[in-house]
Amino acid sequence: MMRTRPLKVALLGCGVVGSEVARIMTTTADDFAARIGAPVELAGIAVRRAGRPRPGVPEHLLTTDAEALVNRGDIDVVVEVVGGIEPSKHLILSAFEQGASVVSANKALLAKDGAELHTAAAEAGVDLYYEAAVAGAIPLIRPLRESLAGDRVNRVLGIVNGTTNFILDKMDSTGAGYSEALEEATALGYAEADPTADVEGFDAAAKAAILAGIAFHTKVTAADVYREGLTEVTAADIASAKAMGCVVKLLAICERAADGASVTARVHPAMIPLSHPLASVREAYNAVFVEAEAAGRLMFYGPGAGGAPTASAVLGDLVAVCRNKLNGATGPGHSVYTRLPAKPMDEVVTRYHVSLDVDDRAGVLAQVASVFAEHGVSIDTVRQQGRDGDASLVVVTHRATDAALSATVDKLRALDSVRDVASIMRVEGE
Amino acid sequence: MMRTRPLKVALLGCGVVGSEVARIMTTTADDFAARIGAPVELAGIAVRRAGRPRPGVPEHLLTTDAEALVNRGDIDVVVEVVGGIEPSKHLILSAFEQGASVVSANKALLAKDGAELHTAAAEAGVDLYYEAAVAGAIPLIRPLRESLAGDRVNRVLGIVNGTTNFILDKMDSTGAGYSEALEEATALGYAEADPTADVEGFDAAAKAAILAGIAFHTKVTAADVYREGLTEVTAADIASAKAMGCVVKLLAICERAADGASVTARVHPAMIPLSHPLASVREAYNAVFVEAEAAGRLMFYGPGAGGAPTASAVLGDLVAVCRNKLNGATGPGHSVYTRLPAKPMDEVVTRYHVSLDVDDRAGVLAQVASVFAEHGVSIDTVRQQGRDGDASLVVVTHRATDAALSATVDKLRALDSVRDVASIMRVEGE
Repeated sequence: MMRTRPLKVALLGCGVVGSEVARIMTTTADDFAARIGAPVELAGIAVRRAGRPRPGVPEHLLTTDAEALVNRGDIDVVVEVVGGIEPSKHLILSAFEQGASVVSANKALLAKDGAELHTAAAEAGVDLYYEAAVAGAIPLIRPLRESLAGDRVNRVLGIVNGTTNFILDKMDSTGAGYSEALEEATALGYAEADPTADVEGFDAAAKAAILAGIAFHTKVTAADVYREGLTEVTAADIASAKAMGCVVKLLAICERAADGASVTARVHPAMIPLSHPLASVREAYNAVFVEAEAAGRLMFYGPGAGGAPTASAVLGDLVAVCRNKLNGATGPGHSVYTRLPAKPMDEVVTRYHVSLDVDDRAGVLAQVASVFAEHGVSIDTVRQQGRDGDASLVVVTHRATDAALSATVDKLRALDSVRDVASIMRVEGE
Repeated sequence: MMRTRPLKVALLGCGVVGSEVARIMTTTADDFAARIGAPVELAGIAVRRAGRPRPGVPEHLLTTDAEALVNRGDIDVVVEVVGGIEPSKHLILSAFEQGASVVSANKALLAKDGAELHTAAAEAGVDLYYEAAVAGAIPLIRPLRESLAGDRVNRVLGIVNGTTNFILDKMDSTGAGYSEALEEATALGYAEADPTADVEGFDAAAKAAILAGIAFHTKVTAADVYREGLTEVTAADIASAKAMGCVVKLLAICERAADGASVTARVHPAMIPLSHPLASVREAYNAVFVEAEAAGRLMFYGPGAGGAPTASAVLGDLVAVCRNKLNGATGPGHSVYTRLPAKPMDEVVTRYHVSLDVDDRAGVLAQVASVFAEHGVSIDTVRQQGRDGDASLVVVTHRATDAALSATVDKLRALDSVRDVASIMRVEGE
């Protein structure tokens, strides 16, 4: 029952991901036709600059006029792998107006304007799919949106940025400091020349917003996500984690509040026990833990970035939206029926590892302990180490709110006996 | 845009999984309605014996007449969690004739008659979904069929049976023998009174057949799957694996041949290196590794069985088929366009760990080595250990076909100096 008129695909962007998309579509066209039930034709590829060598990419398809390509009137699906907010957003909205479905890998745009784009897609009766926007090749959006559609997700906890995981893994395995590990990541191509989006957690925060919205059927934007990067993580923090049987990871954490009435999403470095499956995620790999009421604890692991892995996710979506087109149907849209508010970081409850430089004299521990007690932050363990007149105190707390911990730390800083609050890090995954 | 006429669901089976399905559908009915776009009503529950206490299951819905329930004329979706070939098959075919979609957790039936059932569903224009048939709550069918639809899967390697993983994990962590570990698994409810389906690998073989068919877009039945259980695995094998830096796992392995012209599917115990992510899958957990050309190596991990996890998978499918019903569409069907033949075990290429009891005298190693060489089986390492007149020889080979290894072993058995071929185990995951 193969349809002979091909589905026409416009590809926007032909960088690392786009060129792989074009290559795979071209070399395995027969597989695509068989799996979709109709041939798929790459109708045009919009690029910023013409004339660059693009091995394996059919040159006659290249154009610098993305606008004209999207609006030429016969495009069934637009694949957007340009990234950034504009002109991507405008082009996607134009595609919808033209009746084309869209496959995107654009996490920044989806995290900012996902709700608006979903509404526009629904009004146009077309699909908006974006598996590639989170954790590269790892199927995550589809499992959360479809496989767990009959369950209640309580928590998503993951390593969703390969660059920062590479840096932290290097620091952990070699004892290197942050700058040294970043240099190596840059030299090996794991970090970009300007690593800000990765190391400051912006990339992970966008992904956390997308995951939280889907997991909890509500609207979460990147602006709702608490964000701390890893530039402040020191070799001493890593060593301290080791001493506790932990590793430091940059985690994206999305949680439904215990009372079910709100959600939180945050990105920050945290210590997790070596026994946690996320602890063994090395190099630039990604992995995401999902805790659901009936399913229990699931983990998804794989390459979180790279041309071919990201293209795999894009093309899986492409097959799905093409099938939907042939069926005259659309896939499951954005489900935001719970309308749970995203709560600020203050109300998040977790454990903390606080490292203090203090005077090495009697009574300091008692003084510090009473500050924690005053703010209702219960202490789990204290490790004290003296050295030449001053000493370090490492306090690990039981679960407390971020607000209580912050107030505790402010008070500690004001103590004469506390010379410095050397580091504060959350402890997760227990 | 909520439809008010509910979608009607007939539930066949109300055991460990069925009662969870009924409970969750009842307690989270509002979520289902919101996610689907129409309310879903549990119209009836077919059970074998009435009158048993089923806490939380609405008693007025129970019936012992599954046939009448399926054929009453207003059922939109049939959920089959009875298991076994008949009467499940007949009931599913009846459901299709009635225009109902089917969600099933029945691995034995799908592995035997999946192609026939898919054809019947396609002819009736309805859906047949069965995420719960493989690895419980872990999303696997959907990622393979949909997320990787634009990629080429080369290999699926997984722990898909919780009972046997629990037994092997116990043997590994306590040094217990097989019988002792099985007893503990039975006492804790991880093994059934008759553990044959699990320990002889039938359950895993059914799952391997389903996975291979979907991964390679071809037809594979349980009869095509080579199968070895774990009843022959000894404490000595486990110790031997440890000495090599490995653990023993019962693996389901589905591979596309290097020339792309055939596939193989097999289930057997194998040694895998401790560094492999599957090595750390403990207790009754399941995990599946998928290697695809563009995506690279992905892993899916979670609870592979149990009432609630399996119900989670069933209900995810239920939401999907209900949405499809409302859309007047069907999901992606069975794609068997490659028609790759399933090749027999003889042609499978892997590495082997062969343990021999031999005479402790000069020349024996040379004799043994020449038998390997004669059959073209190249040796990687040999470990020799003497003890009072006889000795043990542990040979680990490079990659060789199963046929070559079998011929080698037959010849070894015929040698006067070889007292016993104590064990043969494959080495995977490298």
